[in-house]
Amino acid sequence: MIAHTPEPPYTAVIFTSVRSDGDNGYAAMSKRMNELAARQPGYLGMESARDGLGVTVSYWTDDEAAAAWKRVAEHVIAQERGRSTWYVDYQVRVATVTRSYGPTGPR
Amino acid sequence: MIAHTPEPPYTAVIFTSVRSDGDNGYAAMSKRMNELAARQPGYLGMESARDGLGVTVSYWTDDEAAAAWKRVAEHVIAQERGRSTWYVDYQVRVATVTRSYGPTGPR
Repeated sequence: MIAHTPEPPYTAVIFTSVRSDGDNGYAAMSKRMNELAARQPGYLGMESARDGLGVTVSYWTDDEAAAAWKRVAEHVIAQERGRSTWYVDYQVRVATVTRSYGPTGPR
Repeated sequence: MIAHTPEPPYTAVIFTSVRSDGDNGYAAMSKRMNELAARQPGYLGMESARDGLGVTVSYWTDDEAAAAWKRVAEHVIAQERGRSTWYVDYQVRVATVTRSYGPTGPR
């Protein structure tokens, strides 16, 4: 469940969101986007949790790989639907991971 | 619930964890650490969710502010208790936020 990322540096996209009421196709889209993201060039992994607030961090080899995923057509449509329907509020933060540590090393 | 952070750059500490069974003092410590972190110099905000996996991102003015929080005595004790008791697995990633966007601006 914790992503197995390489030695830094690499890119993290921190997506924080507050959902609107009702599913409105969200669960199916979320599953599809997770599958699609995992097939993109430069994808390193994803970590996600929601309890009220949703916090999803996706990891990429570099900023360009993350930016390319943002431009994937099916994902562009999902982003638009997110803004119009699924999210009351959200924020995207693009960051460069410089250090990583845990019980099993840098991961 | 979404942290109100300033224009980048600033530092994000991404803490991902898998809890062990039972509370063992975790809830009280978690509340205390959130209160204590919010009083540290350079603290900008925190976003957190847990459903199986826990994903907590804390934001700091710079890496040194984040490093100083890591060294606060009461937090050092909590980290030790986390390693020995509360967490089956965890990872800490220190990152520099370079871009931020959402419906209300950079935040």
